[in-house]
Amino acid sequence: MSATIDLLLMNGTVVTMDAAWTIIPQGAVAIQGNQIVAVGPASELAEHYTAKETRDCSGHAIIPGLINGHAHVPMSLLRGMVADQQLDVWLFGYMFPVESQFVDADFSYVGTLLSCAEMLRGGTTTFVDMYYFEEEVARAADAAGMRAICGQTVMRLPTPDAKSFDEGLERARRFIEAWRDHPRIVPTVAPHAPYTCTDRIYQEASALCRRFGVPLVTHLSETAHEVDESIREREVTPIRYAKRVGAFDVPCIAAHCVHATEDDIRLLREARVGAVPCPTSNLKLASGIAPYRRLIDAGVRVGLGTDGPASNDDQDMFTEIQLAALLPKGVSGDPTAVPAREALALATCWGAKAIHLDQIIGTLEVGKRADVAVVGLGRLHSAPRYTYSPDAIYSHLVYSARASDVRDVIVDGRMLMREQQLLSLDEADILHRAQSIAEGINTFLAHRESDVLAKIIALGGVQPDEIFEIQVKARVGATSETKLHALLEHPEVSISKHSVRTQYDTYFFFKSHERLRIREDHRTDPGARPEPKYTITLVAEAVRGEYPLAMVLSRARYTASADHTARFYREYFQPERHVEIEKRRKRWRILYKEHDFALNLDTLASGASDAGPYLEIKSRTWSSRDAATRANLIGELMAIAGISEDELVKQEYVELV
Amino acid sequence: MSATIDLLLMNGTVVTMDAAWTIIPQGAVAIQGNQIVAVGPASELAEHYTAKETRDCSGHAIIPGLINGHAHVPMSLLRGMVADQQLDVWLFGYMFPVESQFVDADFSYVGTLLSCAEMLRGGTTTFVDMYYFEEEVARAADAAGMRAICGQTVMRLPTPDAKSFDEGLERARRFIEAWRDHPRIVPTVAPHAPYTCTDRIYQEASALCRRFGVPLVTHLSETAHEVDESIREREVTPIRYAKRVGAFDVPCIAAHCVHATEDDIRLLREARVGAVPCPTSNLKLASGIAPYRRLIDAGVRVGLGTDGPASNDDQDMFTEIQLAALLPKGVSGDPTAVPAREALALATCWGAKAIHLDQIIGTLEVGKRADVAVVGLGRLHSAPRYTYSPDAIYSHLVYSARASDVRDVIVDGRMLMREQQLLSLDEADILHRAQSIAEGINTFLAHRESDVLAKIIALGGVQPDEIFEIQVKARVGATSETKLHALLEHPEVSISKHSVRTQYDTYFFFKSHERLRIREDHRTDPGARPEPKYTITLVAEAVRGEYPLAMVLSRARYTASADHTARFYREYFQPERHVEIEKRRKRWRILYKEHDFALNLDTLASGASDAGPYLEIKSRTWSSRDAATRANLIGELMAIAGISEDELVKQEYVELV
Repeated sequence: MSATIDLLLMNGTVVTMDAAWTIIPQGAVAIQGNQIVAVGPASELAEHYTAKETRDCSGHAIIPGLINGHAHVPMSLLRGMVADQQLDVWLFGYMFPVESQFVDADFSYVGTLLSCAEMLRGGTTTFVDMYYFEEEVARAADAAGMRAICGQTVMRLPTPDAKSFDEGLERARRFIEAWRDHPRIVPTVAPHAPYTCTDRIYQEASALCRRFGVPLVTHLSETAHEVDESIREREVTPIRYAKRVGAFDVPCIAAHCVHATEDDIRLLREARVGAVPCPTSNLKLASGIAPYRRLIDAGVRVGLGTDGPASNDDQDMFTEIQLAALLPKGVSGDPTAVPAREALALATCWGAKAIHLDQIIGTLEVGKRADVAVVGLGRLHSAPRYTYSPDAIYSHLVYSARASDVRDVIVDGRMLMREQQLLSLDEADILHRAQSIAEGINTFLAHRESDVLAKIIALGGVQPDEIFEIQVKARVGATSETKLHALLEHPEVSISKHSVRTQYDTYFFFKSHERLRIREDHRTDPGARPEPKYTITLVAEAVRGEYPLAMVLSRARYTASADHTARFYREYFQPERHVEIEKRRKRWRILYKEHDFALNLDTLASGASDAGPYLEIKSRTWSSRDAATRANLIGELMAIAGISEDELVKQEYVELV
Repeated sequence: MSATIDLLLMNGTVVTMDAAWTIIPQGAVAIQGNQIVAVGPASELAEHYTAKETRDCSGHAIIPGLINGHAHVPMSLLRGMVADQQLDVWLFGYMFPVESQFVDADFSYVGTLLSCAEMLRGGTTTFVDMYYFEEEVARAADAAGMRAICGQTVMRLPTPDAKSFDEGLERARRFIEAWRDHPRIVPTVAPHAPYTCTDRIYQEASALCRRFGVPLVTHLSETAHEVDESIREREVTPIRYAKRVGAFDVPCIAAHCVHATEDDIRLLREARVGAVPCPTSNLKLASGIAPYRRLIDAGVRVGLGTDGPASNDDQDMFTEIQLAALLPKGVSGDPTAVPAREALALATCWGAKAIHLDQIIGTLEVGKRADVAVVGLGRLHSAPRYTYSPDAIYSHLVYSARASDVRDVIVDGRMLMREQQLLSLDEADILHRAQSIAEGINTFLAHRESDVLAKIIALGGVQPDEIFEIQVKARVGATSETKLHALLEHPEVSISKHSVRTQYDTYFFFKSHERLRIREDHRTDPGARPEPKYTITLVAEAVRGEYPLAMVLSRARYTASADHTARFYREYFQPERHVEIEKRRKRWRILYKEHDFALNLDTLASGASDAGPYLEIKSRTWSSRDAATRANLIGELMAIAGISEDELVKQEYVELV
């Protein structure tokens, strides 16, 4: 006598990942509705059940669907966009400008579809996400038939979907209310990280999670720098900070934890926080290697994630599992550190604990949701098959099997991939839509890469300066004081400002003849504010118009405050060459016949062919007629100062080095 | 007007890997015979050439065939056999016993076929091998159509194909002579490693290489332990030692170099040695992470290898390339360390230099051999495609593409895989032959795993002991001296030997009721040799036959010298529990009525319920009749000593703890 059920997976090696690590060599899994109703030897299940669909899994392993514990799935659209850069160049030079320009509801939807298709092909059935327009992530995950915890990102900076964090929190609240009863999607809020949030963001996010009974998703202790900064600014690690601001008052999923201290690890265990390192991403972004062995030994709930595909670049949990087995061995010198079985657990039974869904997924046991992957064994890269020890299956799955060996995938009892054919998603259509979004970004970046101005504009805050610059410069030697005196004491000259400065200028030169100047400007006169000013100025190629005495340059100039290091700009702009100049400048702002001029007495630091001093008279204007007027006035000022023509220097300082 | 050639690969992104890192976005490669005759824009080549076969490579990258710089290809047959063990357990417990039992000509041939099939599928066109029966490796590689440097392993220990290293060197000489003129196979000799070879092996191998103009293949500085030991024993690192014994007098390919010092790196560069780390294997065996960045910066010829599939477990160069890009970032904290382009170079242009074949392979350039792989882009895991910067292709190939994306493979102008169908090899037949060899090993291991005796025998040197043991043991307390005296002074007793020992015994207990004893036996009597003796003894369950006074145990015993640590044996045998006993033993070997007995006065160290002293009289024999005789004689000796029945102890020492 046999019961009729929906689906019977027969004759595979069933890797249950249950508490006893049960392996059933000639096993079967019976599925009715969205649940597993029996797991056991195939011969037994064949006696008890008749199924609407029976899949022969000979030569295959039947495993719990894999759990991707941390991702930013829409970022699949940015995969391969930029790599091998310092974190700031990657983030401020590429990710933020592109995200602020391109991320919208459609981006999140299409990017999620692409990721779901990839994840299903690789046997992943559940993922935890953190991105913008998270309702679109939820909608796409639902369409794909996957299980997901979707975290609406909140941070104190403006994001593509919220101008302020209040708006972000409100978005999260509406999102959770709209999706809270979904059978597979858990909607929630994701305060981005301690270094991008405020206490209030975490407190309100935690309150939201408590109110709706959903887990809180965040990033903690990803980099050593983040930990150092947190200790410097708050005297506690990011993990202890997170506890302080309430993040651990609700079930928490903390991505990375690469630099968790012993104290942090105790906190994570006590608060039952899920720690989710992302091996590939942690390597690629040079964050480091998480203390897998110590986290596991301490009893922390440990999972594994892919992180966003912009830093991975795939969403292949087989790769992450393999790295979780390999990396701890390589760095500890102990080849038994994190054996295959435990590495697989991080993406199944233990991973389910880490994301607080172990009541319903993570193992193949009666009563659990039917989230299952069927993985081919004995392919060219995984043959031959050793079976003398049942545990050898873990080694096969972790060290040999790969995403492309997955044959069938079932989520919540529904077959989403059969015989490597995706059933819920249209691959060709997704690839087409993804590429068309990427084409827009390609065009944006292609334009920007060939255009230094566009690259500056992408960084934000750029202002155009006056086009015409009128200047005269003279090597004045020992006569500098006399000449200055003549000018400053002249009855028609009034001084509006005076300062003494040391300026460190770095010039970048490009094929395009444009020039970038990054200036670090320190006031050194007594009583002046000690903070240096940093500016970046793009100077287009100049058209020189020579007036009898003064030089008039016509050129576009764009200035922004320089928030990053010279190293950042060098790596971001990749100039053909760069030149550094240091000069000491005494500056007077003067008015002469109702026109303003700058009077600079400059001494160059070593490196220049002639250190000076140089006396420079300079002015700028938007108008060509005004430029001519000023050129004549500069002639008069030269006469006042008694500068002779043979003292004039036609080059700019950067040309003197 | 157009020339007719054999093969035209059209419309792909040609990644030439030439010195200028030329990328041709809509490119083509023209092949005539075994050579590349043109590389350029597809439109140009279309004008100049008509081909017998034209392959449209739209949406694909055309790259140089990948170079696997270090492998033991027949070991694919041992893939997944054992993992996550300490190196000694892995090697002495599994690899050596299985290799000594199963490796023969057929094993090497079939294992190589399996590896070639896997490597071709993953875009690898050339490999460097080191194994036994290397002529079979050459024969299989030739049948597959691949390019290979095949190194016949030589070491001072007996190998599956040579009883001595002289025989190994002679084998290598014959092999080189037989294969020296092959267009794709370079036959050579591979002295295994400094720690398994002698000076003479290296010297003679180097002489062989010089004589035939072939490179020398070896392992150097794989583990920190190896380096430490080398410095302790020879006062130089393995790399400096290799130079001293002539390994660098010829072009050398040195696998691993994980623990190369700064001095080593200089030596490698000066001697133009190819250094070939194996990222996955170096992690899995806990050897560490090679100094990729430092090796490259120093100008060493650096390649990449998979190592044997028993420690990897695949032969997928895409994985190794990705790890070579990721690992240096993760450990240095610098996300620009080894960018994608350089990681790919390690398996192409630089890899060719490392194996001294850069004159003919490694780049797509006119005049080079036509070794090419065509790799699909824009799959679910590698979409979308960014093209704003030509260099983005490196990121796509290194971080997103994988072995299963390879569509076509050409070696020496011959198409070996077309549209993912292998043309030179019969996959099903290879898988079948591989599995049937594995089944033999499965049976051997299954038997051994369930049989402690088989596991000991696998380690070698085991001798069966006498089956019958006759013994009496008494707790003698303060009377011990008197009793001993009575025995030793008795006219019918003669003493043959006397010693004082401290014995550390570790007992392993199994479900099977067998017992293993590992004994560390130190002589402590003055003048005795200080070296301890280590023995391992398997004791089967005893059948007790009680004689009036003495106890007679009938049980199988097997003893071998114990060459490994207690930790090794614990991990290898995996006992249910283990017990340690330390005892101080005064021993006399005596003759009484022409039978030999041992007389032991034993004191147990703390831990025992009663430390003693115990007086033990013992004898062993193969014969049951003789056992009865000796039991009676022991009764007489007890009477001589004056041991009363209530002093007798029936348990063994291990039962007293």
